[in-house]
Amino acid sequence: MSSTYGKIFKVATFGESHGIGIGVVLEGCPAGIEFDTDFIQHELTRRKPGQSRITTQRREADEFEVLSGVFEGKTTGTPIALVIRNQDQRSKDYSHISTQFRPSHADYTYQIKYGARDYRGGGRSSARETAARVAAGAVAKLLLKKLGVTVQAYVSQVGKIKLENDYSTLSLEQAEENAVRCPDPVIAQQMFDYIDTIRKQGDSVGGVVSCVIQGSPAGLGEPVFDKLHAELGKAMLSINAVKGFEYGSGFDGVEKLGSEHNDEFYTDENGRVRTKTNHSGGVQGGISNGEDIYFKVAFKPVATIMQDQESLNEKGEKVIVQGKGRHDPCVVPRAVPIVEAMAALVMADFYLRQKANQL
Amino acid sequence: MSSTYGKIFKVATFGESHGIGIGVVLEGCPAGIEFDTDFIQHELTRRKPGQSRITTQRREADEFEVLSGVFEGKTTGTPIALVIRNQDQRSKDYSHISTQFRPSHADYTYQIKYGARDYRGGGRSSARETAARVAAGAVAKLLLKKLGVTVQAYVSQVGKIKLENDYSTLSLEQAEENAVRCPDPVIAQQMFDYIDTIRKQGDSVGGVVSCVIQGSPAGLGEPVFDKLHAELGKAMLSINAVKGFEYGSGFDGVEKLGSEHNDEFYTDENGRVRTKTNHSGGVQGGISNGEDIYFKVAFKPVATIMQDQESLNEKGEKVIVQGKGRHDPCVVPRAVPIVEAMAALVMADFYLRQKANQL
Amino acid sequence: MSSTYGKIFKVATFGESHGIGIGVVLEGCPAGIEFDTDFIQHELTRRKPGQSRITTQRREADEFEVLSGVFEGKTTGTPIALVIRNQDQRSKDYSHISTQFRPSHADYTYQIKYGARDYRGGGRSSARETAARVAAGAVAKLLLKKLGVTVQAYVSQVGKIKLENDYSTLSLEQAEENAVRCPDPVIAQQMFDYIDTIRKQGDSVGGVVSCVIQGSPAGLGEPVFDKLHAELGKAMLSINAVKGFEYGSGFDGVEKLGSEHNDEFYTDENGRVRTKTNHSGGVQGGISNGEDIYFKVAFKPVATIMQDQESLNEKGEKVIVQGKGRHDPCVVPRAVPIVEAMAALVMADFYLRQKANQL
Amino acid sequence: MSSTYGKIFKVATFGESHGIGIGVVLEGCPAGIEFDTDFIQHELTRRKPGQSRITTQRREADEFEVLSGVFEGKTTGTPIALVIRNQDQRSKDYSHISTQFRPSHADYTYQIKYGARDYRGGGRSSARETAARVAAGAVAKLLLKKLGVTVQAYVSQVGKIKLENDYSTLSLEQAEENAVRCPDPVIAQQMFDYIDTIRKQGDSVGGVVSCVIQGSPAGLGEPVFDKLHAELGKAMLSINAVKGFEYGSGFDGVEKLGSEHNDEFYTDENGRVRTKTNHSGGVQGGISNGEDIYFKVAFKPVATIMQDQESLNEKGEKVIVQGKGRHDPCVVPRAVPIVEAMAALVMADFYLRQKANQL
Repeated sequence: MSSTYGKIFKVATFGESHGIGIGVVLEGCPAGIEFDTDFIQHELTRRKPGQSRITTQRREADEFEVLSGVFEGKTTGTPIALVIRNQDQRSKDYSHISTQFRPSHADYTYQIKYGARDYRGGGRSSARETAARVAAGAVAKLLLKKLGVTVQAYVSQVGKIKLENDYSTLSLEQAEENAVRCPDPVIAQQMFDYIDTIRKQGDSVGGVVSCVIQGSPAGLGEPVFDKLHAELGKAMLSINAVKGFEYGSGFDGVEKLGSEHNDEFYTDENGRVRTKTNHSGGVQGGISNGEDIYFKVAFKPVATIMQDQESLNEKGEKVIVQGKGRHDPCVVPRAVPIVEAMAALVMADFYLRQKANQL
Repeated sequence: MSSTYGKIFKVATFGESHGIGIGVVLEGCPAGIEFDTDFIQHELTRRKPGQSRITTQRREADEFEVLSGVFEGKTTGTPIALVIRNQDQRSKDYSHISTQFRPSHADYTYQIKYGARDYRGGGRSSARETAARVAAGAVAKLLLKKLGVTVQAYVSQVGKIKLENDYSTLSLEQAEENAVRCPDPVIAQQMFDYIDTIRKQGDSVGGVVSCVIQGSPAGLGEPVFDKLHAELGKAMLSINAVKGFEYGSGFDGVEKLGSEHNDEFYTDENGRVRTKTNHSGGVQGGISNGEDIYFKVAFKPVATIMQDQESLNEKGEKVIVQGKGRHDPCVVPRAVPIVEAMAALVMADFYLRQKANQL
Repeated sequence: MSSTYGKIFKVATFGESHGIGIGVVLEGCPAGIEFDTDFIQHELTRRKPGQSRITTQRREADEFEVLSGVFEGKTTGTPIALVIRNQDQRSKDYSHISTQFRPSHADYTYQIKYGARDYRGGGRSSARETAARVAAGAVAKLLLKKLGVTVQAYVSQVGKIKLENDYSTLSLEQAEENAVRCPDPVIAQQMFDYIDTIRKQGDSVGGVVSCVIQGSPAGLGEPVFDKLHAELGKAMLSINAVKGFEYGSGFDGVEKLGSEHNDEFYTDENGRVRTKTNHSGGVQGGISNGEDIYFKVAFKPVATIMQDQESLNEKGEKVIVQGKGRHDPCVVPRAVPIVEAMAALVMADFYLRQKANQL
Repeated sequence: MSSTYGKIFKVATFGESHGIGIGVVLEGCPAGIEFDTDFIQHELTRRKPGQSRITTQRREADEFEVLSGVFEGKTTGTPIALVIRNQDQRSKDYSHISTQFRPSHADYTYQIKYGARDYRGGGRSSARETAARVAAGAVAKLLLKKLGVTVQAYVSQVGKIKLENDYSTLSLEQAEENAVRCPDPVIAQQMFDYIDTIRKQGDSVGGVVSCVIQGSPAGLGEPVFDKLHAELGKAMLSINAVKGFEYGSGFDGVEKLGSEHNDEFYTDENGRVRTKTNHSGGVQGGISNGEDIYFKVAFKPVATIMQDQESLNEKGEKVIVQGKGRHDPCVVPRAVPIVEAMAALVMADFYLRQKANQL
């Protein structure tokens, strides 16, 4: 198991869905950053369950405790440990699946890999683990804020309902004004209604989260392997239920000609080097060029559904897995802050790594 | 710069397009693996320039020398150093762009990041660097061969020409029988003709490489951050010109319902646990489940085109970048062995990492 | 700051002397190890303050809480988070030194490095941090126990009072029978009396801890840089107040001739390859050879003394640092379990790393 | 095997004693450093065999080739690959020991660890590997030179002949004026004569190398695990034949009282914070305080002697290992540049790591 992320700005997460709690130790955060606990709580609240009727009804306050690394309201450069205790554990809900392998969950693979598993709510494989990421990502955002870098994600697709408009034509802050986190209110309502319908059917559906990073200095990213977009890709693909990642022109860019796709350089009115177009998605040769960084993340339909499914138990016997428990019919509304958190961790890490490149 | 990849089976690559040579130091390869130099050369030959008229006409023998780590025909467990000397350097070809930032190349970002750069042919940012990856990947394949794991990639799209068929309906070995490396001969010819047309226009076009890994044991991958597909994604995104990655159902899976998408478990005639469908792409919870692992990689059109483009020089003055030099009009035919190499490196590393998980 | 140790069996520690608490996240521990909480508590108790009148009178229960990674009494392969809350914080004791740089403490260097510091009791630089190491080391010992590997340390020198006898002539378990942790009762009493005298003078004195690892399989250690003894050395040198490390013949071996120093091989009655002597200290070429591994660790006199000392404050003004607070007059008795813990972490890590060396 | 060292300024070494050659890939060196090849060659020449009659008569030019990372005389920020080809291989000298385990060599442990080994001259375990370290260390010295940091080592003991004087009373540059590399000419001659006598006896003897780092800024080192002295210790202990490490007051400091040992702070005439004494060896709490950093490294007598020794072969049969081949009767004169190289690598790495600690 590898629960560590980052080279300089490093996180080590821990915790299970139905254990005592989850948390994170964040190492490498510079000293002197104002530790805004309200902001961190705000980010956790954006991710927490029970926000509307289209998210899981599990009840978690998701309040965190700071165990170390902060003194007189500021970071000290020492490891920051944050713990979020689990409250609504209801382990009994899960006893019926203690020996079953739920389809498209991690039950079978964890059993094979470790020879044992905490089956309660998926244990470590539960998306509850992402609360620790959001807490750490909030600290990364506090660092990025000092640099003028912002990270904004939003829902751009649910099932077949797509927000076709480019991010630059949208008011991204509107995403937080509805339960789906789609910045177009009309499409947001369509998405909401569709998710609600799916929920009533006891089914689930996938979606896409788009993300835009603005204000990044040029020069971040460490080719040839730790390219900026490669780390963003890994960070996103490490989130539960993610099936794909693309940045800039992405899969659509495949169909373009070089003469259409190349981003020509020019100097803007402030003498800053810019590109006329941004098919590169703000990254060239694996290094930020100062333009907006944007990417998309594909989420599959959640594996937990309220329907009976055929499967096997640990003995290899056929069983019927019954749909029980509480779940999200569509994960993308709550995935928005998670995508932002992982992006913030990647950017903070690369910012500090770049400092070590020069005398 | 980060030119190191892997945790146990680790590679450190080096070299510039027009320097003395490129190479790799491979650490963590177990002792006792037969070091099949013919096979390694064969893999390098699959990647080398000048294979047909739709690839760059740069002339490189791409022969490698083994400096260490092999004794009496077998690996010894010590670092394996491989060097490929550059031959057809023609540095003079590049003098005209020594102070120019070519559109959608890494010239500008390297200049910003390092304050200086080897401008000849892109220096370190050149795709020539991937020859070292292919050499290392060939050693990884030798390891995987002992485990019965195979890695096969092929071209599934060029511009708008798509191979719609699922990999399971194709004879993948046929991909090596044509210059495009598409396993369907008819579509391969269409792709070839299209690339050749684009080439004559002095333009370039993108494409998609698909890859299938078969024979993997269940249990590989290290969640929560180093999930198998997350590392595959990073590895692919680190290849020059890659813009997107998806595995299993990928971006299309977004539109599915959970009840359609879930892969139900059953036991096959040999008592082995299998899934009826494989939308998971062989990976559940970030860990291989023993089914085929498959994924797609999107490549943008190559940035080098034989047309004039507007840009800037290092002083911020407007310049016309002229199309000169030798280039691939479409990168995907030669990208096939690179995709395989990176996938093999990821699989070999996870195989060895999994060994360290148990007493 | 780097609070992470190990490559496979990895610890990330956190916490300050007078903050909420200290703790550790342990990643890479295999699943299925019986999690003996009594044993872990026993190890923490061996390190805790207030054991006798020659140790600090700070009162800490040093009880730990398990937040994750254990299910039904066994490790699950997921990160194990342990927290020890601080109880006897008495921050007011330290207010007088909030702006002073205590001689031979880390006050000045932390201030320079981070621009700020948690001055209460040394904050992160306090030896209180080692409680987290002992907790993690106890888990490592549980792993090593399954392999038949034991780690035993003891005090072999206090000031000029030396235990000259070789470890093989001693009953090491007797070390736990006295407050000094020296296995020779007569010398232990001399050491105790000497420390007590020093304590009454308000002064401190240094000492040496010796350590023996028995039952190690041959083959552990990863040359050329991560040699077994090099990692043991780093691990020991990372403990507060350590000034030197030697293994096998150590500094005395310098004076020997090769013909005296070489350890000749033979086969014992069980057909096992052995060496006639063990000047190598169980390590050859950086790899264990199956003989006992033994080494010595030098600890300086504790910097905190009950005497006035000249120094500077943050403004560079001369100040008199007054001797206040509670401290150990000699650190070695409580250092014994810390040395063992770090040695156990190193051995567990190398054991798992060695597993990844073979197909 | 772990042939990688450093976190930011990272080296990956490779090569065997009697293979094609040895070398290093150096990653993380900032761009813009003048690449002084004469200086690098000079450092290699200081380490090379055949310098006088008290060093091995193996003939190696130890000339290096730069494969990458340097352009127009300066580093580019990309990996720097250096190769030193082996010349005087004489593999036949070693055929008689191909199945024997030489006492106190790494033959047995490599055989156990890897199941096979390149037995020629010790293969990877040969001290020939350190030439790559010296080459990399020379680049680190070029970086440190820009910062005003110097690293100087010298021989302070051979057998029982000790240079008792403190480094501050010596002219360290005189060390390079004699074959032993001891800065006191009289003692140097005694050491030379003694080594020569031992050589004629076909025996070997140990020694101590002392090292002083001057001009270091305060603030380097990354507690709690990667303390400056802990990394120096590991780096030194990773050098062939090293048995011990101490810094500052070292093992002697054990016998001191805190009131004697503490280094009181004061402000010098330039307003700089200094300490009156330097028992701390320039490091407090694992972080440099701006004073001189000094340490000692103990080397055992070389295992190769020109005398018959009892041992075993691979089948466990008793054999007589005959003294043949060429060897150093005492390793310390040639170890001086190796100690400096490793110290330079540690300092360069910490310098760059410290840059990543601040916004």
